[in-house]
Amino acid sequence: MPVTTIAWDDGMIRMIDQTRLPGQLIYLEIRDIPTLAEAIRSLRVRGAPAIGVAAAFGLLLAAEQSTATRPEAFFDELQETAELLRNTRPTAVNLGWALDHMLESVRAARAQGVTAMRTALRQKAMALYKNDQTVNRKLAEYGASLIPDPAEIITHCNTGALATVDYGTALGAVFTAHAQGKKVHVWVDETRPLLQGARLNMWELQHEGIPATLICDNTAAFVMARREISLCIVGADRIAANGDTANKIGTYALALAAKHHGVPFYIAAPCSTIDPAAASGEDIPVEERGADEIVNGFGRRTAPEGARVYAPAFDITPNELITAIITEKGVHTPPFTSSLPSGQKTLD
Amino acid sequence: MPVTTIAWDDGMIRMIDQTRLPGQLIYLEIRDIPTLAEAIRSLRVRGAPAIGVAAAFGLLLAAEQSTATRPEAFFDELQETAELLRNTRPTAVNLGWALDHMLESVRAARAQGVTAMRTALRQKAMALYKNDQTVNRKLAEYGASLIPDPAEIITHCNTGALATVDYGTALGAVFTAHAQGKKVHVWVDETRPLLQGARLNMWELQHEGIPATLICDNTAAFVMARREISLCIVGADRIAANGDTANKIGTYALALAAKHHGVPFYIAAPCSTIDPAAASGEDIPVEERGADEIVNGFGRRTAPEGARVYAPAFDITPNELITAIITEKGVHTPPFTSSLPSGQKTLD
Repeated sequence: MPVTTIAWDDGMIRMIDQTRLPGQLIYLEIRDIPTLAEAIRSLRVRGAPAIGVAAAFGLLLAAEQSTATRPEAFFDELQETAELLRNTRPTAVNLGWALDHMLESVRAARAQGVTAMRTALRQKAMALYKNDQTVNRKLAEYGASLIPDPAEIITHCNTGALATVDYGTALGAVFTAHAQGKKVHVWVDETRPLLQGARLNMWELQHEGIPATLICDNTAAFVMARREISLCIVGADRIAANGDTANKIGTYALALAAKHHGVPFYIAAPCSTIDPAAASGEDIPVEERGADEIVNGFGRRTAPEGARVYAPAFDITPNELITAIITEKGVHTPPFTSSLPSGQKTLD
Repeated sequence: MPVTTIAWDDGMIRMIDQTRLPGQLIYLEIRDIPTLAEAIRSLRVRGAPAIGVAAAFGLLLAAEQSTATRPEAFFDELQETAELLRNTRPTAVNLGWALDHMLESVRAARAQGVTAMRTALRQKAMALYKNDQTVNRKLAEYGASLIPDPAEIITHCNTGALATVDYGTALGAVFTAHAQGKKVHVWVDETRPLLQGARLNMWELQHEGIPATLICDNTAAFVMARREISLCIVGADRIAANGDTANKIGTYALALAAKHHGVPFYIAAPCSTIDPAAASGEDIPVEERGADEIVNGFGRRTAPEGARVYAPAFDITPNELITAIITEKGVHTPPFTSSLPSGQKTLD
């Protein structure tokens, strides 16, 4: 049973501090918005679906602590908190999606007063939380249907339980295939600079007893050249209407190598990751991170002082490199403009 | 003026400990073969041309310290030392090439006794040392002729002064273009796992005042997608007769991205790197390194205990991805089987 990454626990947010893994499994107890914002910015919680839920719980936290008695003042406070949280990370669209759902629910309850607004928020946060669990299980089933038996799989960045409320997206598909008795082996890109593959995927796969081999990101292409690789499967932080996909930096290079070797390349993500407002990858903002994550990440400086660094957190994989996009609605194949579900406005 | 990596200094080998860069510039004084073998294995000295010269100096060290008085015993000792050094690293063919040259010279002098043999060895070692300097300058000139003005260049692993006796191969071409007044900017792959790009290229480029930007290896493809890149240029550890090239792991992925984006992809290496005995990349042994270099490389463990790791030190870039191979003899274009010079047997 994969771990639970995040939960609402009687007035506070309980979440794993993912920066401490695999060395230590430490749960943070978050009781205020600045601490939550720092946790999102520092990737203590990361993964598009997980940060969506974290933001929803953030609004719940703000609502519980608010002393406002008039609906307008209460709503304004929430909206301010929502904007603060929305700006913590620019690429993952699930963050804004969850906040929009929360604000919509509280807006609808405005006529009934602050207590009703609080109740509406709590119900919506719990619905988003449950929705993430349901959606992951469904998309994992669809994903598993594309995994042959036996399978040699390459993945990039963490898309397991730690990237979601639980279970995961791309890695969830692997968990399901394994649970179905398929013989799977996963080649895990370490995922520079923050090593979500090495630190988090290897930890989750070990936990599930699934055979896995860690490689440097630059080794995946050579693995494809030397071994029979069945497929690549990764997650997404934002999917444009035409299928262009923003995901962890390195995804594009992996997709190019897959194309060259004729290896199917799958994206697995909930519909909330689809941004119908983005016609193509050109419309997706790519977050840039600080140089220190690259030159000072392991506890020892790895480049001379003053070295200039370019550190995009994500890249864009164009739709022509993607074999299929897997959501909780099914397996969507090109052309994505017509096959993709309408996306983030939906909530089951 | 780039640094001098290695030198023979009155009965000992003086070399930069490259594992300590960029933090500290420390010169090792090596006086015995086990210490030299450890230095090569641990990549205190690395880069195909540099380890060739290090091995030659190793035989000189053994010769100076030998107490053998009969030519046969003396030769046997040297041959034993040569085998020990030859086995320190399996992929870089320059190592064996330099040792073969040394053994040939001492064999030729055998009839004249041990003193003459020592003299022959010393002359040959100095010839190899000088040859590396001359060869680098020549191939850097040829390389620079392929660099436009201005130029945006991507490189992988270190191929500067630190990889050779001095000046360098692929990075040497960049130094020469810069010295010619061309406006060059270098995108430096950090080069996992041992970060020769981050640690060594960034240090050398800073030293030369050449603008450079450090990126994770997985970012090069996205840089090609978003910017106008003029060319990629890298070194080599062994080049097969058909042009297939073994170089630092990650070179193949970079070459695939270059092909996709129509970016010229150049290999720069001395003729001593060409192995006529290898018909293709299939014949080149690929060294595998220990897991610790990936999961425990920089002072902090980055994967759970027991994680299985695949750590090839090199990969093979097939000839069809290579625009040209640059040696001290000129710029060689496909088909390489006919265009490449005969290779490692030559010594100017």
